[in-house]
Amino acid sequence: MSIDFFDDIKHELNIVEEELQKAVHFSDPLLTEAATHLVSAGGKRLRPIFCILGGKFHNFDMDKLVPLAVALELIHMASLVHDDVVDSSMTRRGMPTIKARWGNRISTHVGDYLLGKSLVLIARYQDPLIPKVLAETSVKMSEGEIVQISTSFNTNQANRDYFYRINRKTALLISASCKLGAVACGAPEPLHQALHRFGHHIGMAFQITDDILDLTAEQVKLGKPIGGDLQQGIITLPVIYALKNSPGRERLQEITINRNKTNEEINEAITLIRECGGIDYAAGVARKYIVKAKRELATLPDVPVKKTLQTVADFVGIRNF
Amino acid sequence: MSIDFFDDIKHELNIVEEELQKAVHFSDPLLTEAATHLVSAGGKRLRPIFCILGGKFHNFDMDKLVPLAVALELIHMASLVHDDVVDSSMTRRGMPTIKARWGNRISTHVGDYLLGKSLVLIARYQDPLIPKVLAETSVKMSEGEIVQISTSFNTNQANRDYFYRINRKTALLISASCKLGAVACGAPEPLHQALHRFGHHIGMAFQITDDILDLTAEQVKLGKPIGGDLQQGIITLPVIYALKNSPGRERLQEITINRNKTNEEINEAITLIRECGGIDYAAGVARKYIVKAKRELATLPDVPVKKTLQTVADFVGIRNF
Repeated sequence: MSIDFFDDIKHELNIVEEELQKAVHFSDPLLTEAATHLVSAGGKRLRPIFCILGGKFHNFDMDKLVPLAVALELIHMASLVHDDVVDSSMTRRGMPTIKARWGNRISTHVGDYLLGKSLVLIARYQDPLIPKVLAETSVKMSEGEIVQISTSFNTNQANRDYFYRINRKTALLISASCKLGAVACGAPEPLHQALHRFGHHIGMAFQITDDILDLTAEQVKLGKPIGGDLQQGIITLPVIYALKNSPGRERLQEITINRNKTNEEINEAITLIRECGGIDYAAGVARKYIVKAKRELATLPDVPVKKTLQTVADFVGIRNF
Repeated sequence: MSIDFFDDIKHELNIVEEELQKAVHFSDPLLTEAATHLVSAGGKRLRPIFCILGGKFHNFDMDKLVPLAVALELIHMASLVHDDVVDSSMTRRGMPTIKARWGNRISTHVGDYLLGKSLVLIARYQDPLIPKVLAETSVKMSEGEIVQISTSFNTNQANRDYFYRINRKTALLISASCKLGAVACGAPEPLHQALHRFGHHIGMAFQITDDILDLTAEQVKLGKPIGGDLQQGIITLPVIYALKNSPGRERLQEITINRNKTNEEINEAITLIRECGGIDYAAGVARKYIVKAKRELATLPDVPVKKTLQTVADFVGIRNF
């Protein structure tokens, strides 16, 4: 998602970007290098964007939003860095991961450091809802990671299991971002709830799309090897569908549970998944979430930001990187 | 430090223990097993103990202390689990580490999960000082870990570097425990500060003693291999002293920077460190911290808990496990 897509909050995003750079400034040269590298590697800043947009519904106040927006991105970054420790993916966003450059030990503590920095920012807020929601979110994010590990290479999974995982992996933090932006600006309770639901639907659609792209994108655009989820034994929605509906489901099963797949086998699996309609099915589910998100938007007050969120919703449904 | 040592807060510690068990209860069987294992593995519960004792100085109220005491132990546990990820120590407290049983990936996320649980407990407190101090403490703890990694096998270290590291590794959280116990019970500001300083001195003495025991304890009592710090390239106070003062300092230097030491070489290094007085020197520094801690205690109000803290101070100085 390119930044010029959010021209109307460009100024706000620049402020967040500057604060993010400051948050990872540190006297130890090794850590500064690692953290700065991570910040520079970019990413979509999706969570700060949702936080700021959420704040636009009621008494918008950047001073109240900046620490939260930065904290949300730091929590996200920490989870990426800790993911690098665990799944030995060697590239992320086309740049070497922290792990690949500095090893597991540094990754673990750089992740903890980023998380700690986010806690310092969150501790500034008087409203107890902000630390509460974020604390509960991080517990659930860890639960999701652990379940993802314990169910990896397990083909006996239903859609329900997949939704449980991606809610924890992605949707919860995005939905918290939308909601807490409003909370930080003192919006009334019903607005929190609507933004929470909007964020949930968008987050689910976003992760389903991510999982589709892992099977379909060009490697250059994705910035990481195609079929990485299959390689790591992460069973995504198109795979669950194909394991039930593909005429070649026995072969797909065989490849899926194999911990040492060749690239040829991954390509074979992707073909089986695509040919039985697994990709189309998952894209359809993502679209349903987009519809739900837009329906939720319709209930929100008519302020200019609503139009931006509508565009975001459309974009999440069609993005190809 | 055995629990019967704290007979006067036995009841309180049982409550903390129960809540700790509850905090790590989880629907995923893999995580429950990992976390329960970690809780059962025990440990001294030093941070809850200091938190409760800190609370005894002013309007003692267990309801206010329990979530904090549990959170402090969870933060400590999370740091142990993440330590297991990074330094590949295979045993801790005589039991297999989480890592040894479940692998790096689970350790990373179990650590994050424990930390998340602590945040949920901390979010209950109205006083902004509690999340603030703990957030700043976790940032510094991560900094300390990173510096420990980046300076490992580096023999060009002064006492100052060592004190910087052990303050972040141990003293900060112990000092936060003492202080925040008082904060949670609404004690006045000067009491916070005195308990903070007391905790700092005790924490420093505790870690110096730990580092001495790593070189001198019987393996069975320690529950991990002797000379583990040397093996991992962590340069502790007795080593810094010996690298300056031992007649065999060139040989010691040679062994210290070798990343693949044999057990014989570790024993040779320990002999060199001991014979030049490195152990005695470090023990002397620990004693000085104990004296400072007791001096700080003397300034505190005369309540029964003072006697307990005095005993703790004495014990930290002479403990051999």
